[in-house]
Amino acid sequence: MPQSSITIAHGNGGRRMRELIRDSFVSRLGNDKLNIGYDSAVLPWSGNVAFTTDTFTVKPIFFNGGDIGKLAVAGTVNDLLVTGATPKYLSLAAVIEEGFLFDDLNRIIDSIAATSREAGVSVVTGDTKVVPKGEADGIFLTTTGIGTIDTPIAERVRPGDAVIITGDIGRHGAAILLAREGHRFASSLASDVAVLSPLFAALEPYRASLRIAHDPTRGGLAQTLHEIIDASGVGIELDEVPVSDAVKSVCEIFGFDALFLACEGRAVMIADAAAADNIVTALRHCPDGANAAVIGHVTAGDRLLLNTGYGVQRQIEQLVDTPLPRIC
Amino acid sequence: MPQSSITIAHGNGGRRMRELIRDSFVSRLGNDKLNIGYDSAVLPWSGNVAFTTDTFTVKPIFFNGGDIGKLAVAGTVNDLLVTGATPKYLSLAAVIEEGFLFDDLNRIIDSIAATSREAGVSVVTGDTKVVPKGEADGIFLTTTGIGTIDTPIAERVRPGDAVIITGDIGRHGAAILLAREGHRFASSLASDVAVLSPLFAALEPYRASLRIAHDPTRGGLAQTLHEIIDASGVGIELDEVPVSDAVKSVCEIFGFDALFLACEGRAVMIADAAAADNIVTALRHCPDGANAAVIGHVTAGDRLLLNTGYGVQRQIEQLVDTPLPRIC
Repeated sequence: MPQSSITIAHGNGGRRMRELIRDSFVSRLGNDKLNIGYDSAVLPWSGNVAFTTDTFTVKPIFFNGGDIGKLAVAGTVNDLLVTGATPKYLSLAAVIEEGFLFDDLNRIIDSIAATSREAGVSVVTGDTKVVPKGEADGIFLTTTGIGTIDTPIAERVRPGDAVIITGDIGRHGAAILLAREGHRFASSLASDVAVLSPLFAALEPYRASLRIAHDPTRGGLAQTLHEIIDASGVGIELDEVPVSDAVKSVCEIFGFDALFLACEGRAVMIADAAAADNIVTALRHCPDGANAAVIGHVTAGDRLLLNTGYGVQRQIEQLVDTPLPRIC
Repeated sequence: MPQSSITIAHGNGGRRMRELIRDSFVSRLGNDKLNIGYDSAVLPWSGNVAFTTDTFTVKPIFFNGGDIGKLAVAGTVNDLLVTGATPKYLSLAAVIEEGFLFDDLNRIIDSIAATSREAGVSVVTGDTKVVPKGEADGIFLTTTGIGTIDTPIAERVRPGDAVIITGDIGRHGAAILLAREGHRFASSLASDVAVLSPLFAALEPYRASLRIAHDPTRGGLAQTLHEIIDASGVGIELDEVPVSDAVKSVCEIFGFDALFLACEGRAVMIADAAAADNIVTALRHCPDGANAAVIGHVTAGDRLLLNTGYGVQRQIEQLVDTPLPRIC
């Protein structure tokens, strides 16, 4: 009788582990580079390498709009894209708690396979560890990505530059908060988790006008902008930032600021102001860029300020001790 | 007052997380490629890429002969080496349980830094997640490695080929078993965890004679040989395999077979029999190769057999349901 859940023996290096890898992982992710007979994948390559890694511990693992598998692929692919790379290959390492259901595992791997296809990447190497019940919470995934890179998006940011967001913010963080509180799938609010590949393809003609790009995940838009401020010695003034009504409601109920809620399918960019309108127009032609907008500009200051209307400015401080566990 | 342990806020994407990354990770691992201002490392490259990943969940995290940090670097570097690659760069992703001590974290990162120097690799990108107390056990590390590769060690294995081990087996598994049972540091038995770089450098003149190489980690030597048998459609006959007296004692006490105990600093190779003596001599000139030996040969059969003396052969089956949790 086939087992319905993962046992410690699935991590012992023996036959059960090989069956797990063959039946759950390779059968879903298989491609001509994924050869489990060797300890490393060997990949033809030309050009420089962009390299990034991310662990995903989101709770719950299934949420409105996605799951930990989709998140793991999108998160790592997006880190490559915002650096200016073309994502090529992923590795996938899983820590699985004893007792985890095969049905859930296979559903997650199906999601990894689908999102990888969408992003044009292949999972070519991996690892699976099983830990005893109580020593991890369900499943943690680590995806590491490599991509080819010609010119990184790494220009000096200048006062007057435009700040552009590719869509409304905070959906992922808000969807996870709702799911945690038991409103799982009850709301129309879905995570924005998505690969940014179509948006970056649309931006190709404007690459030379982009100074820097980031995906505002943990810490949200505000924290991402603070990092740019600190790294570049500039200030940023924000005007209106697109936030859906559903996210606004969640923020009111739970007392969060949407500026700090994670996005998992957005990019924030600093660009030459002269190209800003063209960039926004190009983004809006993409399904995931319909709400793209210029949301502010770089200043000579050193603070993050939000124009709240009628000439009033609110200073947005960095996150310090706010606990926001396991949104990604 | 500086905090002595990790809090949930160290994973929120905000200032505490940046302090953690700067003060614990970057200060110890820093190099000119590790730029935390970008979402991917950008690496000059020529040639093809070898790519491998491994998660480490070993318990306890400090053991006689090493710690989870040394293990995480050696494990991934060794997977590149046995494929025939030159290890270059690592990524490091950590899942840390709330309450984990900074002293322990910093000691682990020091060990990662030291082992990376030894292996000639740099940690160039990373990620840190903090999960609430009880949702992980201390710390889990995922290292992913990339290396340059010209010709993979991936020749067809043939009957008559020699089976070579670079040293005595089972020390890592035995050391972890002892540490688990509370004999921590009491025994002279130390893990063999080590980077295989010096051994593979010594093998360079004999590369063309190597058919295949693996590091016999989870499942030990026997399971690794079973994978070769399955992949190559051959059999293997083993003669005497080097096992230290300390490991033999642990096996007797706990009822394990040393053939299935993990090594973390050994390689097993299948090589042209004509080159076997030269290979063993070259290995023995290395400190970690003093006990290198030809331990058997490839046959036309399909089983793993151990010659136990006086013409008696014992068949060694694959691991199936043996639980061997968290040795790596």
